[in-house]
Amino acid sequence: MKYSSYYLKTNKEAKSLESINATLLQKGGFVEQVMAGVYAFLPIGLRVLNKIETIVREEMDKVGSELLLPALSPKSLWEQSGRLNTIDVLFEVRGANDLARAKNSASYILNPTQEEIMTTIVRHYAMSYKDLPLAVYQIQTKFRSEPRAKSGLMRGREFRMKDLYSFHETAEDLDRFYDEMKSVYARVFDRMGLGHATHLTLAGGGDFTSNFSHEFQTVCETGEDIIFYDEKEKIWKNKEVASEELQKTAESVRASEVGNIYRFGTKYSDSFDHIITQQNGDKSAVHTGSYGIGTSRLMGVLVEKFHDEKGIMWPESVAPFTVYLAGLNRDDDATIAAADAAYTALEEAGVETLYDDRDTGTGAKFADAELLGIPWRVVVSKKTAGKLEVTSRATNETHLLEISEFLKKAGK
Amino acid sequence: MKYSSYYLKTNKEAKSLESINATLLQKGGFVEQVMAGVYAFLPIGLRVLNKIETIVREEMDKVGSELLLPALSPKSLWEQSGRLNTIDVLFEVRGANDLARAKNSASYILNPTQEEIMTTIVRHYAMSYKDLPLAVYQIQTKFRSEPRAKSGLMRGREFRMKDLYSFHETAEDLDRFYDEMKSVYARVFDRMGLGHATHLTLAGGGDFTSNFSHEFQTVCETGEDIIFYDEKEKIWKNKEVASEELQKTAESVRASEVGNIYRFGTKYSDSFDHIITQQNGDKSAVHTGSYGIGTSRLMGVLVEKFHDEKGIMWPESVAPFTVYLAGLNRDDDATIAAADAAYTALEEAGVETLYDDRDTGTGAKFADAELLGIPWRVVVSKKTAGKLEVTSRATNETHLLEISEFLKKAGK
Repeated sequence: MKYSSYYLKTNKEAKSLESINATLLQKGGFVEQVMAGVYAFLPIGLRVLNKIETIVREEMDKVGSELLLPALSPKSLWEQSGRLNTIDVLFEVRGANDLARAKNSASYILNPTQEEIMTTIVRHYAMSYKDLPLAVYQIQTKFRSEPRAKSGLMRGREFRMKDLYSFHETAEDLDRFYDEMKSVYARVFDRMGLGHATHLTLAGGGDFTSNFSHEFQTVCETGEDIIFYDEKEKIWKNKEVASEELQKTAESVRASEVGNIYRFGTKYSDSFDHIITQQNGDKSAVHTGSYGIGTSRLMGVLVEKFHDEKGIMWPESVAPFTVYLAGLNRDDDATIAAADAAYTALEEAGVETLYDDRDTGTGAKFADAELLGIPWRVVVSKKTAGKLEVTSRATNETHLLEISEFLKKAGK
Repeated sequence: MKYSSYYLKTNKEAKSLESINATLLQKGGFVEQVMAGVYAFLPIGLRVLNKIETIVREEMDKVGSELLLPALSPKSLWEQSGRLNTIDVLFEVRGANDLARAKNSASYILNPTQEEIMTTIVRHYAMSYKDLPLAVYQIQTKFRSEPRAKSGLMRGREFRMKDLYSFHETAEDLDRFYDEMKSVYARVFDRMGLGHATHLTLAGGGDFTSNFSHEFQTVCETGEDIIFYDEKEKIWKNKEVASEELQKTAESVRASEVGNIYRFGTKYSDSFDHIITQQNGDKSAVHTGSYGIGTSRLMGVLVEKFHDEKGIMWPESVAPFTVYLAGLNRDDDATIAAADAAYTALEEAGVETLYDDRDTGTGAKFADAELLGIPWRVVVSKKTAGKLEVTSRATNETHLLEISEFLKKAGK
């Protein structure tokens, strides 16, 4: 991608927002805040979000089928589950003006989560033990009426989320799948460079269930949660389940919740009459679980984890581009030709490259490369004499390399 | 994909809905109606939607950069544009219960279209003639408070839409781009097999503008619109702009609007102070246009156009799979092995194949193949003796082919 023809404008002078992630993402032209807790993803930001969601999708495809549920649902479903008046972040939707309300007086729910819809759909599909176990998921925009939304992409009124739902004949089979999902989630966070910093954490059931659940908490100075390490049980616990004693004495860290997994037992099957026929002909309620990952929140957490005073430092797996190619000496035709050739060679080798072909000075180009957090800055100038000057954003080490040497380094 | 491990259940006995498209899509397990005008896309339905959106994305990438705007926006933006009280399908969002409203008493707009947000974002980006022309687009879920939503995917309260916005220094440059988009749109509809049946149609400006606009109307018996051919001007016109005389005398057809393009001039730039510096230093308001394609509506229109009494007949470019491989004689190990081998060969050649490996009878398999509308039914049975019995869904012609012959036919 050539910078000059791309919708991208960094703005180091942009006003700071209330969180590091929103501030850096807005300065870098990744997002723009439309209102508190609501962000537009600009082209380079959408690239990062898509990479995060592709990793999530690839891992979920190994255990379930993707579908797409609507954002709207009838209120009757939420009455039936008993959650219409108990979820304190639930949004409703209705005509916005007199004209609209005169034509359609109904109101609907704008879904923060989708156990209700999912159960009513899957009960038509899974009517026998033969159809189970079954897992379906979606990656979709969701909505919560957050009173305070000051943590950038880490707490949105509108946010992207992967939610997977599983359906089982027995509690034991749900437990088996629930444990499998712990490994699936660990792989997702590993692939984004967060594996070492993300702890499986025992938690309460929240709005959902009286069972214990688990959160995946990424250690992060600016996280909204505190988690405690229980030495005896060798497990991290969140505030809901850590005893007073543990909260006083145990090792604790700030963390941000990037995923959660729940076992509901037959709660939703009971509410929505999701009954199957067992092999012996008996009828029984289905056992269900749900499994969330906040993909836009992850983008925020990644920035909180991976940045320095100059800007973002994306892990390569989610970086918008692998290489920031800075073409210098734009008044010299031979150097321009060398940079053009390097761009072509990188693209042909499958290295995603943002080619800064602008007539701006070296300082502005280097500052953009650092702010944008692209893993490799590659300079072509009069001085590089046919080679590439390659600098790692992570280590700041610089090497003068042949293009073939760099391609090898980049795994191509 | 093996049918036995896929989330797919056809249901020929499902009750009919109010439209052909919703009825066939629900019987085929593509969608499930959650409420009037609101549908869940089940896995095989999401495959079709993704194929439609991929075609749209590929063509839009040739003229603009993709981004993703939020579904929520502040009411103040709609006050500023003067549309808060004039759009009769506008939805608002607020806390759904007392708990939620006590914590957050604000209300927001759930966007049916996004000129307001887009203008406020792009004005930060495009401040000089050097930044223009500029085109950005998104493919996103949108919302309209439709009083009647009885046309299946052709009229949703919640629907998928591609919306592209363009920004220009002069009215002439907007006109140039507007004409270019007519060709871009023609290519999109061509690629989906709708080119011959889709007419560029002169229309009014709707909520948006007093200028003329254009619609892309696909001839369709169940379409909600009527368009008239003006012999003198050699152009189709919709009801808004066809004279009474023309409506009485001209050739007319029912059609469904699958796309529309608008020129706003400086309407939104004036509302939101989007002013640029021209080359000579003068300031001027930006000229803008917007360009929509309803991607979920297209899925409905495709079914209305391409079906018979047995089910859907997808054009190959948007079909969920290219081949429905019916493995018969499941009690015969050699035939099972032959079908397995055909499946492997097809997948390895890149032919997307739904392999019906179930123990059901031939009639059920063939009925599913027809209902699902997959372009090629390929049978492996005792009788086919190492070859494939290939039947076209479109023509119903059957040929006994070597696998190499079929791969050639399928363009592999």
